[in-house]
Amino acid sequence: MAVRRQPKGKKKAVILLSGGIDSVTTLYFAKSQNYKSTAIIFDYGQRHRREIDSAKYIAKLTKTDYYLIRSSFPWVNSSLTKNNLMVAKNRKLGQGVIPLTYVSGRNIIFLSYGFSLAESIKAQSVFLGAHVQDYSGYPDCRPEFLNNFQTAANSGMKSTKIRIVAPLINKSKREIIRMGLDLGVPFEKTWSCYVGERRPCLRCDSCRFRIQAFTDLGMKDPALKS
Amino acid sequence: MAVRRQPKGKKKAVILLSGGIDSVTTLYFAKSQNYKSTAIIFDYGQRHRREIDSAKYIAKLTKTDYYLIRSSFPWVNSSLTKNNLMVAKNRKLGQGVIPLTYVSGRNIIFLSYGFSLAESIKAQSVFLGAHVQDYSGYPDCRPEFLNNFQTAANSGMKSTKIRIVAPLINKSKREIIRMGLDLGVPFEKTWSCYVGERRPCLRCDSCRFRIQAFTDLGMKDPALKS
Repeated sequence: MAVRRQPKGKKKAVILLSGGIDSVTTLYFAKSQNYKSTAIIFDYGQRHRREIDSAKYIAKLTKTDYYLIRSSFPWVNSSLTKNNLMVAKNRKLGQGVIPLTYVSGRNIIFLSYGFSLAESIKAQSVFLGAHVQDYSGYPDCRPEFLNNFQTAANSGMKSTKIRIVAPLINKSKREIIRMGLDLGVPFEKTWSCYVGERRPCLRCDSCRFRIQAFTDLGMKDPALKS
Repeated sequence: MAVRRQPKGKKKAVILLSGGIDSVTTLYFAKSQNYKSTAIIFDYGQRHRREIDSAKYIAKLTKTDYYLIRSSFPWVNSSLTKNNLMVAKNRKLGQGVIPLTYVSGRNIIFLSYGFSLAESIKAQSVFLGAHVQDYSGYPDCRPEFLNNFQTAANSGMKSTKIRIVAPLINKSKREIIRMGLDLGVPFEKTWSCYVGERRPCLRCDSCRFRIQAFTDLGMKDPALKS
């Protein structure tokens, strides 16, 4: 009798999970592609700490293992980490100027942890939710950077074939939300606002991109309903 | 009367400072090259935590500003971070095999923080003590990796001209110590042992490379005198 081969295990992936629309949609996408995901949630002293709660909630909801990495960038002069710097409100969207919410090297650091974890658990992929609207402002969301980082990290590890997967890279916020709706993302549980008070401020870049995208789709943002 | 230009300020550098022979010699080298250095000392749960004390001591002695970054790699299966994994002792040195003390992506993460700090303080250089004996075993000490990382990081930041300086890269431990002696490095205050007990174990790779190098120079390791 022929020996039946065991069904192959799921492919493994590391997901950088912030708790916002992009990273949560990326997690749901990875699951739809049959990846077994392990998430990394970063607590880097961001003022919008509610996103950490959202990320944990989503990880539990989707039965995704996660690591919470606490690390600070005490030197970073960004309005995302300094409470005495205002988050810009009502600025013209999509200007292609690096905004004050830029955190020097944030994705470089996050991806470094992602590759370290991927090598340790033998995952072949590191997923992140970087996309076109971000890389107009954040240099560490550019495809060129992601390609260069993948080359660099693989040349510095035992494993040499870990790839970065950025499934949203060319999508607009509206396209991302449409994709998330198809994947069953519970958008009411995601958190985007940079200001980080009890309710979304509705005026920072992150709120406004989100509201505009839902409006374009003829919907009300589910996070604003309750 | 011609307006006299202000003398230009010192060049700024970020130094990844572990407290061992290599990084301390690198710091002294940077000082000899007239860099104003800011160090990053990493507490990543290493069992040889005494190196953190050495790094702080050296930073204070040399009046070097430093940031202590506390961050863990909870997933890393390395004998440098797990107390239940033995550090290899008396193994054949320089085998070119990746040792158990390998920490997945450690230099990738450390360099990421280095670039983040460098951009924030407008430093042009990130110094680290990687060298030839390490890259026989640790892939993230290879020149190819360092070049690739520099390209990647610059493509992901606002600043695009931060360079990695690894002044020891082609030197043997003996040559590094000779260089350190010329620079006035207080080797008795450096810490190398991976085991991290009260005194050096004398048998781990790190102890043995060090002892052998001092012996080759006809000296006793100053850290063993007291």
